[in-house]
Amino acid sequence: MKKEKNVHAVTSGAKNKKIYEKQTAKHSGKQKTSVAKSKNGVQNNQKSSKKCVKVRFLGGVGEIGKNMTVVEYGKDIIVIDAGLTFPGDNMPGVDLVIPDITYLVENAQRIKGIIITHGHEDHIGALPYILKEINPPIFGTKLTLTLIENKLKEQKLSAVSLNCVKAGSVIKLGAFSVEFINVNHSIAGAVGLAITTPLGVIFHSGDFKIDFTPVAGETMDLPRISEIGKKGVLLLMADSTNIEIEGSTMSEKVVKETLEHVFSDNVSRRLIIATFASNVHRLQQILDLAEKFKRKVAFSGRSMINIAEASSKIGELSIPEGLIIDVEKLKNFKDEQIVIVSTGTQGEPMSALTRMASGEFNKVVIGENDTVVISASVIPGNEKMIYGVINNLYRLGAEVIYESLEPIHVSGHACRNELRVLHNLVKPKYFIPVHGEYRHLKKHAVLAESLGMKKSHVAIADIGDTVEIDSKTIRFGEKIKAGSRFVDGVEIDGADSFVLRDRVHLSEDGIVVVVVGVEEFSATLSSVEIICKGLLMSETLIEEAKQTVANTLNRIDLRKIKDEQELSGIIRRSLKNFLYKTTKKNPMILPVVMVV
Amino acid sequence: MKKEKNVHAVTSGAKNKKIYEKQTAKHSGKQKTSVAKSKNGVQNNQKSSKKCVKVRFLGGVGEIGKNMTVVEYGKDIIVIDAGLTFPGDNMPGVDLVIPDITYLVENAQRIKGIIITHGHEDHIGALPYILKEINPPIFGTKLTLTLIENKLKEQKLSAVSLNCVKAGSVIKLGAFSVEFINVNHSIAGAVGLAITTPLGVIFHSGDFKIDFTPVAGETMDLPRISEIGKKGVLLLMADSTNIEIEGSTMSEKVVKETLEHVFSDNVSRRLIIATFASNVHRLQQILDLAEKFKRKVAFSGRSMINIAEASSKIGELSIPEGLIIDVEKLKNFKDEQIVIVSTGTQGEPMSALTRMASGEFNKVVIGENDTVVISASVIPGNEKMIYGVINNLYRLGAEVIYESLEPIHVSGHACRNELRVLHNLVKPKYFIPVHGEYRHLKKHAVLAESLGMKKSHVAIADIGDTVEIDSKTIRFGEKIKAGSRFVDGVEIDGADSFVLRDRVHLSEDGIVVVVVGVEEFSATLSSVEIICKGLLMSETLIEEAKQTVANTLNRIDLRKIKDEQELSGIIRRSLKNFLYKTTKKNPMILPVVMVV
Repeated sequence: MKKEKNVHAVTSGAKNKKIYEKQTAKHSGKQKTSVAKSKNGVQNNQKSSKKCVKVRFLGGVGEIGKNMTVVEYGKDIIVIDAGLTFPGDNMPGVDLVIPDITYLVENAQRIKGIIITHGHEDHIGALPYILKEINPPIFGTKLTLTLIENKLKEQKLSAVSLNCVKAGSVIKLGAFSVEFINVNHSIAGAVGLAITTPLGVIFHSGDFKIDFTPVAGETMDLPRISEIGKKGVLLLMADSTNIEIEGSTMSEKVVKETLEHVFSDNVSRRLIIATFASNVHRLQQILDLAEKFKRKVAFSGRSMINIAEASSKIGELSIPEGLIIDVEKLKNFKDEQIVIVSTGTQGEPMSALTRMASGEFNKVVIGENDTVVISASVIPGNEKMIYGVINNLYRLGAEVIYESLEPIHVSGHACRNELRVLHNLVKPKYFIPVHGEYRHLKKHAVLAESLGMKKSHVAIADIGDTVEIDSKTIRFGEKIKAGSRFVDGVEIDGADSFVLRDRVHLSEDGIVVVVVGVEEFSATLSSVEIICKGLLMSETLIEEAKQTVANTLNRIDLRKIKDEQELSGIIRRSLKNFLYKTTKKNPMILPVVMVV
Repeated sequence: MKKEKNVHAVTSGAKNKKIYEKQTAKHSGKQKTSVAKSKNGVQNNQKSSKKCVKVRFLGGVGEIGKNMTVVEYGKDIIVIDAGLTFPGDNMPGVDLVIPDITYLVENAQRIKGIIITHGHEDHIGALPYILKEINPPIFGTKLTLTLIENKLKEQKLSAVSLNCVKAGSVIKLGAFSVEFINVNHSIAGAVGLAITTPLGVIFHSGDFKIDFTPVAGETMDLPRISEIGKKGVLLLMADSTNIEIEGSTMSEKVVKETLEHVFSDNVSRRLIIATFASNVHRLQQILDLAEKFKRKVAFSGRSMINIAEASSKIGELSIPEGLIIDVEKLKNFKDEQIVIVSTGTQGEPMSALTRMASGEFNKVVIGENDTVVISASVIPGNEKMIYGVINNLYRLGAEVIYESLEPIHVSGHACRNELRVLHNLVKPKYFIPVHGEYRHLKKHAVLAESLGMKKSHVAIADIGDTVEIDSKTIRFGEKIKAGSRFVDGVEIDGADSFVLRDRVHLSEDGIVVVVVGVEEFSATLSSVEIICKGLLMSETLIEEAKQTVANTLNRIDLRKIKDEQELSGIIRRSLKNFLYKTTKKNPMILPVVMVV
């Protein structure tokens, strides 16, 4: 086996880091074999056994986002999902965050395939970036691959091997065979995975819910899962997103009923419905209702148009002849003849709905005869943006229907009772909760234990962890390099987080540039200029600051200063106190010394 | 009447601004009297009638935060509340936001008093700042004044006239008499106001809920409200915070029951309970339970200690003899003998709980025998911070009890059914919903209409609006200067929002400082230096950027440049395209020209 370096993972959340490093330290250093307490009863083990399955986490644990899991046996590697996440408040200017795939690049030859469970961004979004570095075959269902293809086209990536699978089919990848199992989720074509390894079956739920009355497609394949469970499952990895919600997630059918009410209650008004473009079943319901209520549909927003086209091409979305009109032609129709289906459910600044709400979208001018439906839930962190959009829509006179008082959206993730069903059918020997922040994983672990699983059979993993499993034990193996890479403009930054620290510093305290001219021959100060940005300084204060620097530099013999760096340090120190005293701020101070 | 300048309000939310200005424009400019549609059916009127009550909004409408309402009759002014709000994402580096009180400063002599409904920050937080500019007497109940006094001491403000009132008492302020009416809320001493004006009674609910089983104090004084309603109320202003929640808010008693379970289920563990320091009744329950379960209580966090001391002094909090121990003495007690009561329910970075969770608080080291209770709800916008704290606590092995699965907190605001009760008892002629974002105000208006109120009798106000009311009409009067002031370090910025725009720009794209040396005699370029912060540029890229500037400047005759500004413009333009092409970023470019 290739010996891995025992490197700390780069975690993106600064606050978590301290604790994280502590835990890391427990794994590295001396070869302790029983630091059981820190890991929910599961042992750490630095000596890796030869006959074990290894599950390594490059993302998606301790966070909701950038899912990426590595499953290894012997020399063979398969990867499950390759997602992105959106930047946190401590990452200003970053467009998106993807997993650090150093480990995969170093082991590229061993990768038999990347298996994608469904087409959401947190499962496919990293592909356009990582496929520049590794190029294994990709496996997914029809809609999933269609969405991936769209992404790759945008990035002008070709020569990627995309392999279409169906729920029920089985593929062989090295030491593994992978069976795809139909699950319900908020996107069509979602699958769970039953991965047969030489040591037993690993069942990965993917993102799932159990919808007994789906509006399209089949109910999650519980009979097949039950069969697999009966034969014996070594390890279950399961979605923890909704572990904090008791009971079961509502069926998509509930949304259908609410939408039907909206259509019948608003017969004389224009309807604008915002939803996730990838929720093809939701889209289908809207199209069906539009046809039933004799309205035309105009898609608004680039991703809505792209996905509707793509999913209609592959037969996932059935668009009745003549139903769709171009958004440019809206003026030819009366309000009651139209449904506009739009992006922007999260208040994204450039989205169609946000621009409508702020009066910047001249193709759709919002007024008192509009009913706007936001058929989505608020992703945590987006509250202020989406409520800003809703407030603006109300100000323009529109009616707005959103989650607050009506069931206009249902989650795509299983609640506690559905999770109990899954655990009960799969009956795994070992369990690793995935797809959740630490609190979700922990609560999911407790749920598993409440269903009879031994604490020592449950592992809560962090990004960079390796979990080793054989028929007798589950234990932590070595840490691998893992963490976040930032996609920021065209650059992909690795651990260059100093740039982000600088940005946060700049945004909170601003910057003061001090330009000092030093006379070359006399080595005396000839001028001090101060420019500040992002910090409020009066003319008087700037003058005082200049004087402070001048006084400091005039007091010392500049001939004795050995280099520019030393001089910069002196300038910085002289200003720092002055600026804090006068502005209660600690701006970045950037001295520029010019010899004149 | 003093003629007010018709100035636009400075709104803090950039996205709202566009729409807001449109509405402003409708009020100003030509004297339209029937722009009814834009304001929920209420007419606009620029000609102000002489015999009317004017209600002007300096904050608290179209936002949850910085409540401040002006009530005027003839020359007399009273002010209700003086709150602050916390900065949004578009205000990096800002500590807090308070109302622009230009109008009050210009009319300082007319102000008879500031009436404070209760002691929460969004009702009292602006006082330390505005009392530097105006100094009217302040009226509030005992706990409210105690909290204000604490604040004023911190800011070293004395010579403020603080006047204690009780629920049930009536004070005379110029043309007004103000009766204080007991309401329930998440702080003791909260009151509603019945303000008798020469034209009728204005009823202001303050922040309220109806708690029929309060753990301390009395149920909201519904009989008195009913009496006032029977005599006739001209105008109701009421809390809209929970208008999106059907039914009634749970009683504080529910929390008592949950807390009692926590104590009895954790007899061998250490308890750490985080709550809002100002929720004195919650604090009382914790103290009572600690006594019952024979635990000592240690307060942690400065505001917790201050408020506990202050409220115990005035008799609002009853602390059993010998119950409190210093946090330093915790080591003398066993885990099961202790309850730590802490600040930090919102994950505030410097709070006691956040520091415990990140292992930075050496007085309380979190471990596996700790049960941490977060007895508060998450204020929208704080989700990531508080869940970060919860994740960290779990990682350290603690049990964490928070709102997700147990009723460990109840809201302090009335839900829809309580609002129906209030409207029904008050039976106002006119209604202005307050204490809500636009969506809340709009929904509250619709609720009032559903209870039989005419649409033309309901006004939805914006910050800066004047609503004029007499016995026959409610209409919009002139706009006054109003909006946000930023408390940022020691400075109070008015409309200096360019600093904030700069900070946001710096945080997203960074800054590039270009230092160009120009040879004085030959007017030729002698050097180009580039320093970048918050932008990732490789050494090569920096060299290319320098070359780009040099090439541009070498191509032109520097003798023909008329001043430094023109040269800066040329440098900026030459770099802008280059930087966008190579980094896909638009950093701030700061040229510095030195003649050498």
